[in-house]
Amino acid sequence: MTNTSSFDGRTLVNGSATALLQLREQAPLVHCITNNVVTNFTANVLLALGAAPAMVDIPGESGLFARIASGLLINLGAPVPIQAQASLEAVHAAKHAQRPWVLDPVAVGVLPVRTALAQDILALHPHVIRGNASEIMALAGMGTGGRGVDATAGVEQAKPAAIALAQRTGGIVAVSGPEDLITDGRHHVRIANGSPLLTRVTGGGCALGSVMAAFISLPGSLLQNTVAAATIYTIAAEFAAAKAAGPGSFAMHFLDALANIQPAEVNARAHIHCATN
Amino acid sequence: MTNTSSFDGRTLVNGSATALLQLREQAPLVHCITNNVVTNFTANVLLALGAAPAMVDIPGESGLFARIASGLLINLGAPVPIQAQASLEAVHAAKHAQRPWVLDPVAVGVLPVRTALAQDILALHPHVIRGNASEIMALAGMGTGGRGVDATAGVEQAKPAAIALAQRTGGIVAVSGPEDLITDGRHHVRIANGSPLLTRVTGGGCALGSVMAAFISLPGSLLQNTVAAATIYTIAAEFAAAKAAGPGSFAMHFLDALANIQPAEVNARAHIHCATN
Amino acid sequence: MTNTSSFDGRTLVNGSATALLQLREQAPLVHCITNNVVTNFTANVLLALGAAPAMVDIPGESGLFARIASGLLINLGAPVPIQAQASLEAVHAAKHAQRPWVLDPVAVGVLPVRTALAQDILALHPHVIRGNASEIMALAGMGTGGRGVDATAGVEQAKPAAIALAQRTGGIVAVSGPEDLITDGRHHVRIANGSPLLTRVTGGGCALGSVMAAFISLPGSLLQNTVAAATIYTIAAEFAAAKAAGPGSFAMHFLDALANIQPAEVNARAHIHCATN
Repeated sequence: MTNTSSFDGRTLVNGSATALLQLREQAPLVHCITNNVVTNFTANVLLALGAAPAMVDIPGESGLFARIASGLLINLGAPVPIQAQASLEAVHAAKHAQRPWVLDPVAVGVLPVRTALAQDILALHPHVIRGNASEIMALAGMGTGGRGVDATAGVEQAKPAAIALAQRTGGIVAVSGPEDLITDGRHHVRIANGSPLLTRVTGGGCALGSVMAAFISLPGSLLQNTVAAATIYTIAAEFAAAKAAGPGSFAMHFLDALANIQPAEVNARAHIHCATN
Repeated sequence: MTNTSSFDGRTLVNGSATALLQLREQAPLVHCITNNVVTNFTANVLLALGAAPAMVDIPGESGLFARIASGLLINLGAPVPIQAQASLEAVHAAKHAQRPWVLDPVAVGVLPVRTALAQDILALHPHVIRGNASEIMALAGMGTGGRGVDATAGVEQAKPAAIALAQRTGGIVAVSGPEDLITDGRHHVRIANGSPLLTRVTGGGCALGSVMAAFISLPGSLLQNTVAAATIYTIAAEFAAAKAAGPGSFAMHFLDALANIQPAEVNARAHIHCATN
Repeated sequence: MTNTSSFDGRTLVNGSATALLQLREQAPLVHCITNNVVTNFTANVLLALGAAPAMVDIPGESGLFARIASGLLINLGAPVPIQAQASLEAVHAAKHAQRPWVLDPVAVGVLPVRTALAQDILALHPHVIRGNASEIMALAGMGTGGRGVDATAGVEQAKPAAIALAQRTGGIVAVSGPEDLITDGRHHVRIANGSPLLTRVTGGGCALGSVMAAFISLPGSLLQNTVAAATIYTIAAEFAAAKAAGPGSFAMHFLDALANIQPAEVNARAHIHCATN
């Protein structure tokens, strides 16, 4: 936030509603390098929202494409060597072309290959880091990771790690949980929207990383746009949960909700709280 | 079309309805080498329709399997080296065993690895090439590709490229868009069915390539069977769109519609127009 | 079955109902190494049921993770070299840590790379082998495999092969079909639940292998827990089929049913028959 005078919940809510309109107008091209469990759901989430996903993870192509795309996601959920190489190629190209990018350090701490790769990528200063509490703590060197992809720590517990990472990268850190925490190291935003059903659909967290990559390509501050992504995503989850009879129908209604959600609904339902340290 | 006297819209519509019955009777084994974003949806589309999909993309297996299968799809959406090798192995085996095969040149023009591979595969004379307008133009050397996987050109604009490719390969070229164009270089078929929601589900285009690989394994001309695939696919999309509340429910209803669509419905709803140059 | 006096249908049904409760209480971490067509569906099936899936198939990580997880699935549907290496690493680690594991020999017999790999893995004595009749016969050296991933043989025809494999490994063999057969080589259980729609959704068989990996991590005999997995899975399919209008809506309702199924419903609907040779 360059202008901290505008740092309050109502401003962030209004900014989120505006960002939703901008996203649909601009249909940003979002470059996703992600794990094969969630590629399909991630692409469908972005398409539903109105963005244009492309999953280009071949060395020799990923760098070139990162320069064309508006935003980039690096998700470390299944970093086979060739994808790891494509990821580094894409990040270097994105940096050179001044494109914003997101790191999702899936299951770091527990698993050594991605943990090493995550540190290499962290050193390149991602604009946004998104993970669950255990992942954020492990990435910051303040924990040993969760249980595979599951968080074993709470969001509040991860706050010092999130702040430390944000200060180290100069970017935003988003901790997903029952209540999301998004921080630039000094301004802390809590978003109390969402549904537990998001944790019963694989990619519920991973796809949010791609949505953040879409939103941070829009005009406005990184913090505002990251908050917009999480707010719109979790409100859509609430609409879906209200119609769902289980995780299968939830996933379907969630995609419909992302396509149908309106700025006025974002304004009416967002539960955003702000604090500055 | 060996018999051009039969080249009129009504004949193609009737032939499509007949092909649907044949497909369900024969349940052809369709060998798909495709990108990891759409493998699941592609397999589900073929299963819903009544075909038997198998995604065999390992060198040392793909050639052998191409000889067993009734039809083959090569989709270049994520050509990692090992899959590129398996693709060439499969195409050579399919040619040797006289099996029909489809090339889907996803995002060629923009991205160099697949663009080079597409030219190598094009030289092997695919029976059908399916792509959006930008891809068809780029493959023909008449454009620079679209925006990632998105077309930036219209179907009509791609007609000269489609004709040139068809004449070069001796096969069929299918250009997907709001109105599909399918040509053998001299006979041009336009299909005015479908729904914009097909572009809001990842794999909406890619899965059509696999459906073409299924239909061209049936008796009848290549042009007729390619038209049958596109017509049945896009009419099913219309049924799904009529029930959908967004892209999530559309995808579900689309699979149901592919399983339930009847020949009489193909006859009643197909909008096919023919021209000869 | 260490205590064969308890080997009757009613005991197995009651045990299945109890296992369902235990699974939801313990939420076992299930390590899946599986093919990229079904990773998403497999993870969603496990999440719906209440287990915690993790798809770790990178050498250098898979062995470590197999020691953390409660159960392991090795599915040979797309054994690229790096995944084959990760599979062997995981199995050796699971054996060392005394974790139960499942082998799903997808399309063995027909395809040479996975057939050789399956024999190597078979020699490591999987706790459970799950496949269709053609796959079980091919793995036992009593047939040449089916048509790609489709069975061309019936379950009854595969009984001698299933018994031979169970005796060779000292584990359980589960043959999927219209009526499932599960045997430890001496005790034979037939489960007459399910829906043909399970064969119209890709991963309908593969995901069952992962569910078996979840259930065999619970207290109780291997045979009981394998039966519990198949019984609960196929009863959920019946609930889904009753609501479905086709394979698309079936898949959605199936995930909902796995999340909602209650022990009393397992008791009321299970059709289990036992025989001893």
